[in-house]
Amino acid sequence: MTYCVGMLIDAGLIMMADTRTNAGIDNVSTFKKMHIFEGKDRFISVATAGNLSVTQATLSKLEEGIKNPETEEIETLETVPTMFRAAELVGKVLRSTQLQIKAGYEAEGVSFGATMLLGGRIGDEPLKLFLIYDVGNSISCGRETPYLQIGELKYGKPILDRALTSETPFNEAVKLGLISFDSTMRSNLAVGLPIDIVMLRNIPNSKPAFYRVERTDPYFQTLSREWGIKLREAQASIPRPPFVSPLE
Amino acid sequence: MTYCVGMLIDAGLIMMADTRTNAGIDNVSTFKKMHIFEGKDRFISVATAGNLSVTQATLSKLEEGIKNPETEEIETLETVPTMFRAAELVGKVLRSTQLQIKAGYEAEGVSFGATMLLGGRIGDEPLKLFLIYDVGNSISCGRETPYLQIGELKYGKPILDRALTSETPFNEAVKLGLISFDSTMRSNLAVGLPIDIVMLRNIPNSKPAFYRVERTDPYFQTLSREWGIKLREAQASIPRPPFVSPLE
Repeated sequence: MTYCVGMLIDAGLIMMADTRTNAGIDNVSTFKKMHIFEGKDRFISVATAGNLSVTQATLSKLEEGIKNPETEEIETLETVPTMFRAAELVGKVLRSTQLQIKAGYEAEGVSFGATMLLGGRIGDEPLKLFLIYDVGNSISCGRETPYLQIGELKYGKPILDRALTSETPFNEAVKLGLISFDSTMRSNLAVGLPIDIVMLRNIPNSKPAFYRVERTDPYFQTLSREWGIKLREAQASIPRPPFVSPLE
Repeated sequence: MTYCVGMLIDAGLIMMADTRTNAGIDNVSTFKKMHIFEGKDRFISVATAGNLSVTQATLSKLEEGIKNPETEEIETLETVPTMFRAAELVGKVLRSTQLQIKAGYEAEGVSFGATMLLGGRIGDEPLKLFLIYDVGNSISCGRETPYLQIGELKYGKPILDRALTSETPFNEAVKLGLISFDSTMRSNLAVGLPIDIVMLRNIPNSKPAFYRVERTDPYFQTLSREWGIKLREAQASIPRPPFVSPLE
């Protein structure tokens, strides 16, 4: 299982992915579910969920490049001119990878679904964040709901729905993301530490920052413990329902 | 969509169901997704989720009764000797209902899944709570995880995982259930008020109590508002991550 969340707020782009499923060898980046493509005018981060052979094959094909039938040129994430075209390229490759293995997997009754988050910036474009479905289509993150999730998303969604807005400060948003992961990891043991974080401020020419929350991370341990204590306090402070008679 | 939760704690049995899907006509009880079977030595409550034609047909067949091939007698929830046998009977009827319509639904690509919670007491038995899967099998609620859920269950699971234990007082458990519903309704609009609640204390010969949380219920409005405020306070009280540098 996997949980990944991307947040696109006024202050910048934050992407987080757990690492519990071992993604095996990966020749694209140093992250297990977070894959980085960097060039002189671009920074692109791809987080993956779902069937590992599908996501790995997709990433390998993206690295090798896809021939554009109109221009005869080889397209990669290093050559696409915009983030939207990057999302289209990833979607196209994801779809073709799935179609290749569809017949075999369906016969076996095995799930071969896969979804991806694609975030980053090309040239002077604003920061962008997309969720790419396995049919190849994608949705773009907007200001109204400034986050997108893939994988085991429901346990960690309520805190984001309640607290995250486009105006949330950058480090507050990172904190909310970690609370979202904490809730997810408590309810689904298949999502676990370490958590990989990619952070890109919404400032021209800003450099990405990377952080890995390890199992022993003192900040995350504090956050997890404090959040549990505060939730219990919040729960205790709410009066009990008056309609429950003492004994019936 | 539906969300139902059953809690079996030392203090008693609590079952809650939302009502947003209109269950249409229902000749078993006055509740939409909560169906009550009462007899002189028993109280049985069934909460349903999934394909409405399947759950309705199952309940109608349960009311009419099923002939036991061994004894030739007609079995209903009014005649079964134990809660376990009640769970078996419901599972058998649910399974046979599904098999009847399976071919047609599969051809149409429509979901015909259905699950049920069955709780209550027969005679001097302890209170019991079962989750019945559509294959006809069931699991029984135990002390370690004293609740079972069906339908849209993930949004409301973290609060139960954190706070509910077998020792939780009865009215505190009702409160936790309502917080669980509040989180679910915020993240999935297809789950909504009113919420039907069935409460049965773990006291010999205790009578069941019923409550419907209407849209205008002042207690639930307070709970929902206070919980949101307390969550924001809890979130604000946790320090921000030290690894996010002010600007990078």
